[in-house]
Amino acid sequence: MVAPPDPFAVANALGLVAFGAAGALKGAEADLDPFGVVVLGLLTAFGGGALRDVLVGRTPASLLTTGDVTFAFVGVAVAVVLSLSGVAGRDHPALALADSVGLAAFAATGALVGVDAGVSPFGVVLLATLTGVGGGSLSDLLLTRVPVVLREDFYATPALAGGVALLAVRAANVAPPAPTATCVGVTLALRLAAIRYDWSLPSL
Amino acid sequence: MVAPPDPFAVANALGLVAFGAAGALKGAEADLDPFGVVVLGLLTAFGGGALRDVLVGRTPASLLTTGDVTFAFVGVAVAVVLSLSGVAGRDHPALALADSVGLAAFAATGALVGVDAGVSPFGVVLLATLTGVGGGSLSDLLLTRVPVVLREDFYATPALAGGVALLAVRAANVAPPAPTATCVGVTLALRLAAIRYDWSLPSL
Amino acid sequence: MVAPPDPFAVANALGLVAFGAAGALKGAEADLDPFGVVVLGLLTAFGGGALRDVLVGRTPASLLTTGDVTFAFVGVAVAVVLSLSGVAGRDHPALALADSVGLAAFAATGALVGVDAGVSPFGVVLLATLTGVGGGSLSDLLLTRVPVVLREDFYATPALAGGVALLAVRAANVAPPAPTATCVGVTLALRLAAIRYDWSLPSL
Repeated sequence: MVAPPDPFAVANALGLVAFGAAGALKGAEADLDPFGVVVLGLLTAFGGGALRDVLVGRTPASLLTTGDVTFAFVGVAVAVVLSLSGVAGRDHPALALADSVGLAAFAATGALVGVDAGVSPFGVVLLATLTGVGGGSLSDLLLTRVPVVLREDFYATPALAGGVALLAVRAANVAPPAPTATCVGVTLALRLAAIRYDWSLPSL
Repeated sequence: MVAPPDPFAVANALGLVAFGAAGALKGAEADLDPFGVVVLGLLTAFGGGALRDVLVGRTPASLLTTGDVTFAFVGVAVAVVLSLSGVAGRDHPALALADSVGLAAFAATGALVGVDAGVSPFGVVLLATLTGVGGGSLSDLLLTRVPVVLREDFYATPALAGGVALLAVRAANVAPPAPTATCVGVTLALRLAAIRYDWSLPSL
Repeated sequence: MVAPPDPFAVANALGLVAFGAAGALKGAEADLDPFGVVVLGLLTAFGGGALRDVLVGRTPASLLTTGDVTFAFVGVAVAVVLSLSGVAGRDHPALALADSVGLAAFAATGALVGVDAGVSPFGVVLLATLTGVGGGSLSDLLLTRVPVVLREDFYATPALAGGVALLAVRAANVAPPAPTATCVGVTLALRLAAIRYDWSLPSL
């Protein structure tokens, strides 16, 4: 019998590939040199997970295994090919899509690590949010831009909702990978809808 | 007999409310959307303490308990009410006051955690300073502003002096909560005096 | 018999003095006030090592001992004297040299800590790179500049090569301090050559 894939491992790999690509595409759009593009891709991929692990007192897996690194490089490589082939130009939806997938996948890993570390329900939701928005915010900071988390209302909100959804499905005793899949699905759906319909709240 | 309140808990609650309000007011002045205002308030409230806890190898209390979260939200809520009611407009002293109280309260929590973790006297003063200035610096960074700690001479200095004062009062064997109260008082008095009298040092 | 100096301790002291000076010179060039100059020097000196220690779950040595602090202050003091005496003006090579030495020395401490913590070979190289570029990137961020690591191709590359060199010399069973010395030498030589000959890669 083949063992079913670990929900954390799947979400983690998905997030690393997606954010590696999103960070590299963002770097290419900002006219960084090739090395800067790679660095921005790797930092975007590793940033949220490193923040998550450091907050609960773990050594980031990206330092311990070679798997995480491989996934991040795959994402960067895909982005470089897309950029060089001219497929992904400025404001191409590929960047928004990759970033949304990374947000959703990392929100799930943050919530799972929070549950595993025994933090409070609020802590689980906060870890989901921070892990989801961490990579994109770090790459914005490095490019000296106000992070998207402050510019757009519905960037952190979907990750937060995903964390709440994961807790709700777990509380209903639904077996894995349902909680993880629900978290990824809720976050991704809300984020893509927010981009598509340009959701925002009025200023104070 | 009622147990006296724990000095750390009091300073921590005070700092969370004050920085939650200061961060939210700063976000409103920067014309962020409502969600951005809340996010900036929470990150300002949690930033310094998270830095402090991670540096001494603890999981931040904001992830473990709901108390910290509640205090931060109280500060954000007060700021939102003040903003909406037009009481706290641009350059209103409420922002400077809330920020000064947060600086003083978190300097004390940083020093107390440093003493508890057995770091060196310099480490205690450094933790007091970093914990005090962490929240305001993080919110400045997110708004892509040069952090106030680099722009003003007497922002980190009061927190540093507060840390030294806490060590001095402890060394004199004065019972709690005197060391904590002295740290908060010294930091707050110096910071408010620096704002009132516009203290600065000449450029090199 | 006199015990030979510990390679880590030597590289660490060298990096603290060099980055303390580089950070303070950068602050003086940015027209910060004297206190800001000192703060930027200290944060540049401590930033990379703190990141390194937090990632492997250690409390940063700068909090535990007074030695690290002393070295950082020596670097800051040298920079202040150079600035006041007019020796180190804008674009003076002293800043680039101090920054390159700090990069090389901290790359070595990052690699050594990584080996000691039992991380993967990639993790060792990543820690060498992050520890090397951490201080300079943090000071750039605080000045709201795009970090040099994203602006220049051959800033992170030399630290990365130094980490690989340390692993290679260790794998060849050469006795200490050869691995550390090789890492510092390779990093410094590549970085200085990159500055001297203006190495860069074409944009994507």
